[in-house]
Amino acid sequence: MKLTGNLIIGANEVPATEGTMKALNPATNQLIEPDFAFGGVAEVDQAATLAEEALDRYSHTSLAGRAAFLVSIADNLDAVRHELAARAALETGLPEAQLEGEAAKAATQFRQFAEVVRKGRFLQLAIDPAQPHRQPRPRMDHRLQKMAIGPVAIFGASNFPISYSVAGGDTASALAAGATVIVKAHNAHPGASEIQARAIRKALQENGLPEGVFSMVRGSGSGSGNTIGEALVDHPLIKAVTFTGSEGGGMALYRRAQQRPDPIPVFTEMTSVNPTFILSHALAARGAQIGDGFIERMLVNVGQACLRPALLIAINGAGFEALRATMVKRVTEASARTMLTPGIHASYLGGLAAMESVGANRVAEGLACSADFDGRSVLHEVDGQRFLTETVLAQEVFGPSALLVNVKDEDELLAVARSLKGQLSAAIQLDERDMPLAHRLLPVLERRTGRIVVNAFAHPQEVSFATVHGGPFPATSDSRFTSVGMTSIERFLRPVSYQGFPDALLPESLREVNPLGLPRLVDGQ
Amino acid sequence: MKLTGNLIIGANEVPATEGTMKALNPATNQLIEPDFAFGGVAEVDQAATLAEEALDRYSHTSLAGRAAFLVSIADNLDAVRHELAARAALETGLPEAQLEGEAAKAATQFRQFAEVVRKGRFLQLAIDPAQPHRQPRPRMDHRLQKMAIGPVAIFGASNFPISYSVAGGDTASALAAGATVIVKAHNAHPGASEIQARAIRKALQENGLPEGVFSMVRGSGSGSGNTIGEALVDHPLIKAVTFTGSEGGGMALYRRAQQRPDPIPVFTEMTSVNPTFILSHALAARGAQIGDGFIERMLVNVGQACLRPALLIAINGAGFEALRATMVKRVTEASARTMLTPGIHASYLGGLAAMESVGANRVAEGLACSADFDGRSVLHEVDGQRFLTETVLAQEVFGPSALLVNVKDEDELLAVARSLKGQLSAAIQLDERDMPLAHRLLPVLERRTGRIVVNAFAHPQEVSFATVHGGPFPATSDSRFTSVGMTSIERFLRPVSYQGFPDALLPESLREVNPLGLPRLVDGQ
Repeated sequence: MKLTGNLIIGANEVPATEGTMKALNPATNQLIEPDFAFGGVAEVDQAATLAEEALDRYSHTSLAGRAAFLVSIADNLDAVRHELAARAALETGLPEAQLEGEAAKAATQFRQFAEVVRKGRFLQLAIDPAQPHRQPRPRMDHRLQKMAIGPVAIFGASNFPISYSVAGGDTASALAAGATVIVKAHNAHPGASEIQARAIRKALQENGLPEGVFSMVRGSGSGSGNTIGEALVDHPLIKAVTFTGSEGGGMALYRRAQQRPDPIPVFTEMTSVNPTFILSHALAARGAQIGDGFIERMLVNVGQACLRPALLIAINGAGFEALRATMVKRVTEASARTMLTPGIHASYLGGLAAMESVGANRVAEGLACSADFDGRSVLHEVDGQRFLTETVLAQEVFGPSALLVNVKDEDELLAVARSLKGQLSAAIQLDERDMPLAHRLLPVLERRTGRIVVNAFAHPQEVSFATVHGGPFPATSDSRFTSVGMTSIERFLRPVSYQGFPDALLPESLREVNPLGLPRLVDGQ
Repeated sequence: MKLTGNLIIGANEVPATEGTMKALNPATNQLIEPDFAFGGVAEVDQAATLAEEALDRYSHTSLAGRAAFLVSIADNLDAVRHELAARAALETGLPEAQLEGEAAKAATQFRQFAEVVRKGRFLQLAIDPAQPHRQPRPRMDHRLQKMAIGPVAIFGASNFPISYSVAGGDTASALAAGATVIVKAHNAHPGASEIQARAIRKALQENGLPEGVFSMVRGSGSGSGNTIGEALVDHPLIKAVTFTGSEGGGMALYRRAQQRPDPIPVFTEMTSVNPTFILSHALAARGAQIGDGFIERMLVNVGQACLRPALLIAINGAGFEALRATMVKRVTEASARTMLTPGIHASYLGGLAAMESVGANRVAEGLACSADFDGRSVLHEVDGQRFLTETVLAQEVFGPSALLVNVKDEDELLAVARSLKGQLSAAIQLDERDMPLAHRLLPVLERRTGRIVVNAFAHPQEVSFATVHGGPFPATSDSRFTSVGMTSIERFLRPVSYQGFPDALLPESLREVNPLGLPRLVDGQ
């Protein structure tokens, strides 16, 4: 595929109106061809207007038709998988084989959502039939279904350039909900973004759907002070926003959207240190093994994953020395590898310095860097009192580092757990004899995390019905939703109730004979 | 019951710390005994601390135990029904018989939510079993349930002093979710509030639940500049807020909560004119009958109901004169009746003047007032062009008035529909031959309302599974939820996923043998 660098606004190829950029190969610090267009407020307005025009028709497509469209996107992603992975590798420094897997996962997500659409459970159909003879007054027939909230703006992530980017889970779940979508492509991988956008556009055309169902824009800047991002969040036709990235960037968009004359939901997935708690018997039995698994997962994606385990809490007793020694060894042997962008690399170094300025001891570091934006692995250690005193130590440092917290007893372990802000995930390493402490720890973690894992790590992510990739603030800006998994579709749906409708005017899903054979709750049963 | 006027903070009777008030009888403009205590920031902090302390235990109560508590509240409300209705009538000017019905409805809501709790569907249990032999990597066992978001602050409504007040739907749904609750009592009915709070507290004691599950506070002021309200919204232990009232008051609290270091969900139910569209054949066939029904519903609660039909759109053709004549007659004959508060009465007069300043013609007015805070009924009329030009005409005037919009054709009717902001409900009056226009109108209304009613009116509200009392802004601040009906519980729930758990550590609801016999989605089926 020849990359044009254009913005893709419905069926229009829109060249630069606000300058251009080139992609950077972070492994070589070299720019890569071609020029990619920047747009601005006018392009956002065009895309939003098309998205609004397309909404009525797209949100009322048949479930079968919508599912077919999602499957077409998956097929088109499969057809460009090698090209997409190769370009994404150039732009991110991530291994091409891993990116092939990501592209396959992205296609799978579209197929999974096609199945969710076909099954129709997401419509949450409910019927309360008329009770004409009820006393003291009759009940009218009421029927409920969920429908798309409106055009959605999606801010792609930098760290998973396919599965959480243009053709990622946010786009798949929003399109499954019947929403129209405008993606703001991340500037860290513009070529990979264009390839994905074209796969989606091709599927739109193949399925005869209106052009405004999908657009992709791009602009200069990122985070706050990001003109195109602000234009998206401000646009009156945009009715919901998703964002994956830093707490600073996410909260700037969140607060801006809440200052609109009509505030809109903004789901931001921002930050998490994904603590692991090792209980005493597990530590004594297999401290070295746990430390090994922990560092292995910590290093995934050069530490640039939202589910990276970055914090390990263990009681200093039997097994602790073995744990620490293994972690030190694994970190010491770790190669420095290319980080995603110069900005992330600089933030990583700044984050490490901030940790050390409040007393984190550098107990191990990995092999030295050989290129400008290589991230060198680091292991820090502090004791429990220090951790409880210095809140900086609980903040995420995005990159290949971890913090070992050496606590003196069970009460201090629980105090550390209680001190934590909201997290995407937490893990407990336990043996049978650790159950009493596990039962005390569990409610503390339930309040603070969207997912709790026993004797394993949250990464890699499973995308299924029981997936929760969410959690209390600051992990996300709304703990009631998940951004990954089949129920992430709920972010984009609102209920509508139809009261006293003649059958012919009802949506097909709610007609009396249930022509689509969908699951429906009748009188609460 | 002897009213003490105290704040009820857990098990504590807290006398005034920030002055006192007396209730006003709006029918006589006389103050009523006794003094009611005002609290401030310190009392909010006590209540929030107790609510947080109680949360772990309350949110982990058995479903049966929680349901029993809700039924106890219902029983205790029934036991004080006459006393409650009598006091509420004194404080609001509403008819005692109607308030008896409201008290019965409040008790019914608690019994309905007890049934929702027992059934356990709200937990949205999902299990994705382990697949140890899956390629390329095994799947771990994942299990999801929903749990309470945390302590919830509830701002009671003024206009339904029982069913949407201290023991109203918000409290019932939050307690059903397993959340602990702090109600800010509305100062328009402090005695009725105390009676309800004592019914809830008695149920807490009868069921041996922690005192912090429920508190009721009260403070001077209302809307913005409301110290106790701001203290609730600001308190770091409060994790969600509900509000029913004016757009100004609701948005002040909403925006304040979004400026917290950790923003929290705020569900505000604010404003709606609940438009009715009369299509041509229905108008020709039964214009007079529709006008009669419309004014009857408009006058309910002296026009002080969120579902009051306040806007009627009809094409000026056959039946229009009969429609208008009937509306004029019904309004002209309507008695002036006591409004809820002096403030609402003053706002009503101001709202009527604002409508007339932009060209609304007063085509009828009801019988003259005989007391200070009587609300005199008014019917306004404008043509479609005027309505489309003057946005003030689309704003709610809370009280016994209505606006008839006389449109020239179907396109102008659709233009009026498209011009509307978010609404709680809309109604269509149609006959068989009106279906083509109904099919054009329906998607316009679906985008703008939470509920659409055919050949009837949204009021009275049905509280059931297919109820939606919500809608796009400014009807509410989050169209994805309803504040009435069985699914209103979703406002207070967040998902937690348990991955790789030993059976003994899982919540009972998710254990392998399904000891509670709850509905569970297994592998999406």
